[in-house]
Amino acid sequence: MLNVLVTGAARGLGLELVKRYSLQLPDNGLVIATSRKSSPDLEELVCDCKSKVFFVEMDISSEESILQSVETVKSLLPGKALDILINNAGVHSWTNGGISEMSDLAYQLSINVTGTHNVIKSYLPLLQAGNTKKVINISSPWGSTTSARSFLYAPCPAYKISKAALNSLTVQYALFYEADGFIFLCVNPGWLRTEMGGSDGDLSAEEGANAVTGIISSASQGSNGRFKTICLPGYEQYDGKDVLW
Amino acid sequence: MLNVLVTGAARGLGLELVKRYSLQLPDNGLVIATSRKSSPDLEELVCDCKSKVFFVEMDISSEESILQSVETVKSLLPGKALDILINNAGVHSWTNGGISEMSDLAYQLSINVTGTHNVIKSYLPLLQAGNTKKVINISSPWGSTTSARSFLYAPCPAYKISKAALNSLTVQYALFYEADGFIFLCVNPGWLRTEMGGSDGDLSAEEGANAVTGIISSASQGSNGRFKTICLPGYEQYDGKDVLW
Repeated sequence: MLNVLVTGAARGLGLELVKRYSLQLPDNGLVIATSRKSSPDLEELVCDCKSKVFFVEMDISSEESILQSVETVKSLLPGKALDILINNAGVHSWTNGGISEMSDLAYQLSINVTGTHNVIKSYLPLLQAGNTKKVINISSPWGSTTSARSFLYAPCPAYKISKAALNSLTVQYALFYEADGFIFLCVNPGWLRTEMGGSDGDLSAEEGANAVTGIISSASQGSNGRFKTICLPGYEQYDGKDVLW
Repeated sequence: MLNVLVTGAARGLGLELVKRYSLQLPDNGLVIATSRKSSPDLEELVCDCKSKVFFVEMDISSEESILQSVETVKSLLPGKALDILINNAGVHSWTNGGISEMSDLAYQLSINVTGTHNVIKSYLPLLQAGNTKKVINISSPWGSTTSARSFLYAPCPAYKISKAALNSLTVQYALFYEADGFIFLCVNPGWLRTEMGGSDGDLSAEEGANAVTGIISSASQGSNGRFKTICLPGYEQYDGKDVLW
């Protein structure tokens, strides 16, 4: 028995994670796919995997919407726990001109950081009720302050700052709930060919999702509070190592 | 000729920085002390240092207030540049209970990160006009994601996350404006006996301000994008080294 919730599941990495878990989970495990709105692809998946994959509306920018989703998820998991929460929902945008032109910082912080915090805190009781207690925050090496110079070519400072803050949030949760057996983990899923990643990415969303689920299943207590990059033989940049903060 | 602007200057470290610069600057240099409201201490300082220290109202939570302050500062520095901008204004608060009880994350991010960004971008043209081009962001080792475990005892996760994001913001600015000769620097001023630091701090606000101005005056191009702790002989924790991100 393992129940998984994926945010931002209407497309891209989120959708592929739902697909992957729908194939992987034991028969009595459920996959909850959340998003502001469903999509034709997600609807098809829900239809194909009846009684295994469920769509639940959740807009992570709204605390009310998050709390409503918790009630729906509780009704789908009567008396059961949520085992794995994957915070994949997030926003990205480019800044034209210098960083002084950056006008989307407050927005990126509100979704990628505060939104993720609101999801985690709202689902914490359902996670506490389980034995697995894994919370995965999809992050990006572009959020590494240490390696910022290497990523200067990418003109999205607000996204980078928001991911640095998300990483800090993850570590704060990891330390606070360590004694309860939680595993909070940042994951770098790789540069994927998705709407967010564009068409030049290194990997398909499916390859990224496979690698991410590999990290999640092998994550143990020692992984708590770390930032793991995916491990894919043949790709120097996907070496399974920890990303520097 | 050197002109300095300090935000959050009504009390604590900000007030002491203004005092220090009012004594240090050459006769034709100005110190602009900004805050939402002045204070009796700041008013006295402005009065004692006529034509050297000026109070300018600025609420860093309001873009309109920041832009209005720029106009006032321009009128105080006709045809001249701003040489040093010290972003000292910020907020701190404690979280009761676990991190899941953290309700002030959006607020701390809006002031400590987005507010600081709005100040920097608004004063950038005045800084560009000078030769010194130093921007100092007052940060905290509690914002270090690497060292988070050491600071777990302090129940202020929102503040820590906001300082991690401020550090990332600083590095993004540092890299972007490096070629223009800017020096963006995070500074750990030490644990000070101020309203924010409480009465148990290691140092007086004056000692902190002296150490911070020392870092600022010795900061060269090689300091750009770094996070320096103050250097005080006799204090192991104030060793002048870089704080880990």
